[in-house]
Amino acid sequence: MLLTNDLLLRAARGEKTERTPVWLMRQAGRILPEYREVRSRVSGFIELVETPELAAEVTIQPVDILGVDAAIIFSDILVIPQAMGCPYQMIEQKGPWFEKTIRTEADLKNLHLADPEEDLGFVLEAIRLTKRELNGRVPLIGFAGAPWTIFAYMTEGSGSKTFSVARKMLYTEPAFAERLLDMITTSTIAYLKAQIQAGADLIQVFDSWAGILSPEQYERFSLRYISRICDEITEVPVTVFAKGAYFAREHMGKLSCQTIGLDWNMDIVESRALIGPNKTLQGNMDPCLLYSSHENIRNTTEEMLRAFGPDRHIANLGHGLYPDTDPEAVKVFIETVKNFRHSA
Amino acid sequence: MLLTNDLLLRAARGEKTERTPVWLMRQAGRILPEYREVRSRVSGFIELVETPELAAEVTIQPVDILGVDAAIIFSDILVIPQAMGCPYQMIEQKGPWFEKTIRTEADLKNLHLADPEEDLGFVLEAIRLTKRELNGRVPLIGFAGAPWTIFAYMTEGSGSKTFSVARKMLYTEPAFAERLLDMITTSTIAYLKAQIQAGADLIQVFDSWAGILSPEQYERFSLRYISRICDEITEVPVTVFAKGAYFAREHMGKLSCQTIGLDWNMDIVESRALIGPNKTLQGNMDPCLLYSSHENIRNTTEEMLRAFGPDRHIANLGHGLYPDTDPEAVKVFIETVKNFRHSA
Repeated sequence: MLLTNDLLLRAARGEKTERTPVWLMRQAGRILPEYREVRSRVSGFIELVETPELAAEVTIQPVDILGVDAAIIFSDILVIPQAMGCPYQMIEQKGPWFEKTIRTEADLKNLHLADPEEDLGFVLEAIRLTKRELNGRVPLIGFAGAPWTIFAYMTEGSGSKTFSVARKMLYTEPAFAERLLDMITTSTIAYLKAQIQAGADLIQVFDSWAGILSPEQYERFSLRYISRICDEITEVPVTVFAKGAYFAREHMGKLSCQTIGLDWNMDIVESRALIGPNKTLQGNMDPCLLYSSHENIRNTTEEMLRAFGPDRHIANLGHGLYPDTDPEAVKVFIETVKNFRHSA
Repeated sequence: MLLTNDLLLRAARGEKTERTPVWLMRQAGRILPEYREVRSRVSGFIELVETPELAAEVTIQPVDILGVDAAIIFSDILVIPQAMGCPYQMIEQKGPWFEKTIRTEADLKNLHLADPEEDLGFVLEAIRLTKRELNGRVPLIGFAGAPWTIFAYMTEGSGSKTFSVARKMLYTEPAFAERLLDMITTSTIAYLKAQIQAGADLIQVFDSWAGILSPEQYERFSLRYISRICDEITEVPVTVFAKGAYFAREHMGKLSCQTIGLDWNMDIVESRALIGPNKTLQGNMDPCLLYSSHENIRNTTEEMLRAFGPDRHIANLGHGLYPDTDPEAVKVFIETVKNFRHSA
C-alpha cells in the first residue's frame, strides 16, 4: 500500500525531504488520557500488549491526536524473553520482574528460539490491524530490544541501576553469555522479519542499557549482535538507538543500518563527525524540555533543527517521553518541527 | 604530620612516583565482614555516619585489611542537605529518602547555609580521630557531593533513574535552581575547608548524577559550581569525579583541580587527549572485573596501568565497589597495582 506520508522512510534512506519528519519514543502510551482510558479496560500492561485490537488502537492514538509522522507498534521489548520461555510480570511502579532468571547452562536448556508465528502472533496481528486502520497515512515502526539489553533483563531478572549480575556474567561466564546472546539474536531476527512481513515499514532496535558497558565489552557483547541484526534485516530501513553508547558512535557509523538514534547527552555536531555523512541521525531533545514554556520549547526545538541541518535527520527526543508530560507541550514540539523550514 | 606513604598526594600534584598509588571508591564499607560487624552495633547507616569513633574505625579498616594507599572518610554526600535543614533517611534496599523536598521559594526560606562546626561536627571529629589513628601511614581523603548531585536529591526527594523532577526544575525554574545551587556550593566550600582544617589531605568532589544532563545544562548547572569549589579549595589537591560526564572532559581539563576521575565507559587514551597533560587521571576499572578470576583481574589491571602510563595516574575503579565483591578479589587488584612496574 502506498503511503500518503512517507517522510520518515525517505529521511531514513537519505533522500531529500520537504521538511524533517517527527515522531517520539513512547508516544503511544501513558501521557495520553485516551491511552489511559484503553488501559483501564484491561487488568495490566502485559494484557494490553497481548490484545491486538487494543494495542492497535493505542498505536494509532498519537497519529490522530498528536499528528506525528509515524506510528510505532505498542508492544514491549520483553516479549522476546517471554517467547523464548522466560516469562515476566510488569509490576506497577516497579517495572519488569522475571520469576526465573537465566544464569546457568541448565537454565539455557529450558529456553528455545522464539517462533514468531507461534509465540508472538499477538504482535503480528496488532501490526496487521494497525496497518489496515492507518490505511497508508504514515509508516508503522516495528521494534525489538538489542540482544545485550534483553540479556541484561533475563540474567538480572528485573531492572537495576547497575545491572551488576548481568555484567558479572560477561566476566565470569563469557561463553555462556555468547550462547544466550546468540539465541536472543536469532530469535530477534526472526521476530523482526515477521514484523516486516506483517507490515512494519521500518525497524528500530533499542539498546536501552548500552551505556553501562565498557567500550571493549560493548563491542564484544552488544555491537556484534546488533551488527548481525542490521546485516539480516535488508527489507526495510533499520534504526539503532543505543542509549549512552557515546563511545561507540564511530563504530555505529559502520553498521549496515540507515539511522542512528542519539540521546540528549550527545552533541549533535560531534556525533555527525563521528558517525559520518552516510547515516540519518534521529533525536535528540531532552524529554525534560517538554516541561518548560511553549516559547522555550519552540526556540530550543528550532536550535536543535538548525544543528542537525536539513538532511538526514528524523526529529525525536533523546529518550522516551516521561509519563507526566503535558500532551499540549508535545504538540508544540511536533508543530515546531512541522512548521520549520531551513533557510537556504 | 609527615606521611610515611604520600604516593597519592605526589601523583595528584604530578610528581614522579615509584609506583602508581591505589585506592577504591567505597572501599570503606559493605564488602568487608569487619565493616558489617561495626555496622551491626548501630541501628542504621546514618547513625554510623554520625558516630565519629565508629566512622573512624571503618575508615581505617581498608588500610589495614586491603592495603590501600589512602583512606577516605566514611561519610555520606547527603550530610550537606541535612546540615542545610533538609534531613533524610536511608531506607534499607531503597536508598535515601527526604521527608521534605525543596521545590519552591518558600522551601528555600526554610533552608540555611551549613555551618560546618555546628551542623557537621561529627564528620570533622571523625576526621580528627582517623588522622590520629592513621598516624601518618597514608593520606586521608575528605569529600563532598557536587552541587548538582546534591540539588538533584533535594528536589527529587530520593534516588531516581531519570531525576526528571530535578531536571524539570532546570527548565521551569532556572533562577530558583541557581539560588539553591549557590547555597549548596557556599555550604560545600565551608564544609570542605573545615574538613581540611580537621586533617583531610585531599578532597574529592563526587558528581554522581553528572551523566543525566545535556552538555549545555551540565555547563550551566553543574560545572560552574564545581569550578567555584576548585577555585576556593587551594589548601590541598582536589579530585573531581563526574560519572557519565564524558561530554565535559575537555572543559574539565581547564578546572583548577589536580585530578579528574574517569568512569569505566571512558576510553583512557581519548580521555587523556581531551583533558590534556596537566591533570592526574584517576580510575577506571569496571567494578565488575572483580567478579572474574584472579588471573583475569591481574591481566586486565596491568592492561589498564599500561594504558594510563607511569605518570599522573591514581589507580581506582570507575565507580564504587559493588556490595557483593569478594575482598580477596579486591586484594588482587590492589596487589597487582602495587607490584606493577612500567617498563622503561
